[in-house]
Amino acid sequence: MQPETIRSVPELRRDVAAWRGKGLSVGMVPTMGALHRGHEALVQAAKAQSDRVLVTLFVNPAQFAPNEDFAAYPRDEEADLEKLAKLGVDALFAPSVEEMYPRGFDTTISVGGPSQGVEGEFRPHFFAGVATVVAKLLIAGLPDRAFFGEKDFQQLLVVKKLVRDLALPTEIVGCPTVREMDGLALSSRNAYLSKEERARAPKLYAMLRALSGRLRRSATPGVDLDEAKRALGRTGFSVEYLEARNAETFATVADWKNEPLRLLVAARLGKTRLIDNIAI
Amino acid sequence: MQPETIRSVPELRRDVAAWRGKGLSVGMVPTMGALHRGHEALVQAAKAQSDRVLVTLFVNPAQFAPNEDFAAYPRDEEADLEKLAKLGVDALFAPSVEEMYPRGFDTTISVGGPSQGVEGEFRPHFFAGVATVVAKLLIAGLPDRAFFGEKDFQQLLVVKKLVRDLALPTEIVGCPTVREMDGLALSSRNAYLSKEERARAPKLYAMLRALSGRLRRSATPGVDLDEAKRALGRTGFSVEYLEARNAETFATVADWKNEPLRLLVAARLGKTRLIDNIAI
Repeated sequence: MQPETIRSVPELRRDVAAWRGKGLSVGMVPTMGALHRGHEALVQAAKAQSDRVLVTLFVNPAQFAPNEDFAAYPRDEEADLEKLAKLGVDALFAPSVEEMYPRGFDTTISVGGPSQGVEGEFRPHFFAGVATVVAKLLIAGLPDRAFFGEKDFQQLLVVKKLVRDLALPTEIVGCPTVREMDGLALSSRNAYLSKEERARAPKLYAMLRALSGRLRRSATPGVDLDEAKRALGRTGFSVEYLEARNAETFATVADWKNEPLRLLVAARLGKTRLIDNIAI
Repeated sequence: MQPETIRSVPELRRDVAAWRGKGLSVGMVPTMGALHRGHEALVQAAKAQSDRVLVTLFVNPAQFAPNEDFAAYPRDEEADLEKLAKLGVDALFAPSVEEMYPRGFDTTISVGGPSQGVEGEFRPHFFAGVATVVAKLLIAGLPDRAFFGEKDFQQLLVVKKLVRDLALPTEIVGCPTVREMDGLALSSRNAYLSKEERARAPKLYAMLRALSGRLRRSATPGVDLDEAKRALGRTGFSVEYLEARNAETFATVADWKNEPLRLLVAARLGKTRLIDNIAI
């Protein structure tokens, strides 16, 4: 069955209220469309934990800088809708930019803590854009649970912090990154890769795996990170960051032996920006 | 009957959910306590338009600058509770600072537009502090309507903008300023005035009335404002601003004849900061 397509916040609110009236729980999967198996895994997690599943599709201009790929970002609502129908999703909330940011819109939500540094340094407006739109989506749908991929690990921590700080009535569930057979993390942006770049791209995850295996027992983790960066450079990647952070607070590492740690990387292959991360 | 006193967001959510389950509408009156007849008028408006009335009491540290009167701000929860009991309020949400801003809290909501200039210039962190705490209160209680006094006129526009931008499911209702017989706007801060200052304070509103009566037909409104400022100065007020703004968008005035306009003033009498405003 085709999911119902919802365009406005009041319509969304009405549908969710009808579900709630029947005592049904609601799971939300926020996406920017161009759905792949990573999104499918989020939908499946949502289905397993919710009576009704609502997917949102909104390519959020506020989280792109002027020099980034907002215009080029892949969009194919019809194909997305077909995938969601096969997955048994109940509704797709696909608002226009005007619905989310009406004339005169001028409100920004900044989450400190986990939005500082790493991705936040290379994309300075990114997390405020994410926090603002996610808050608006969660306020509109008030789901019991919302599902985010660990692929965007720092974003997951930012959203968790947002929800905790504003006491939004939604549980944020992080889901493992889905990968190609060769290890490349699924991403809508992989479509930008040339054939030659696509062949090289899995080296990013191979490096994360190798490095994460030895950082805990290394006497010189900083040197190891620098060496891995240079090695990536020699393989044709232009590295933006390769950094370890506390996996819960996103603070810089104080204790390499005992903290929960996450290793994160962003690198360009040609014009395509790839990100990935792994538990240490 | 004594209103129930609620200290935590989950408790608040549970109570409101129980009301909603019975099909009852909910009105919220956010306050910083030290309740006076101005707050009583808000509660009465809330009662007239809601099945259940929830008053919140929270002296919000985030909207005070370090040099302001956070510590000195009058607090008397017992007296407030007694007043609310007489008014037939159903519940008082009076959280601790730790409940609203738990350890590590680090999220700020900035509303552009109406938070720019006037009060926002003299209290630079004020409206972000207000917007953040009001968003959190509205998210926690999800009332049908929330009631704010026109005494804080710019704040009322900021809250309306916040609700519109984030699509919070609450209607914001502005209520007229309540005044003493001699015209002084009720304010918890009036308690700071010496007897001599209290006798002089009504001149602020007298000036607003006189000035608002002639600004529309004045050929030189800017000159009139400057003269009124000087006159207040001679009466012992230290004026921070005396300004007219569009009463809906809070933009600076483009057309003195035809726009909806509001005249706003902030002035100190001794150590006490008084604000007031009037329709033009």
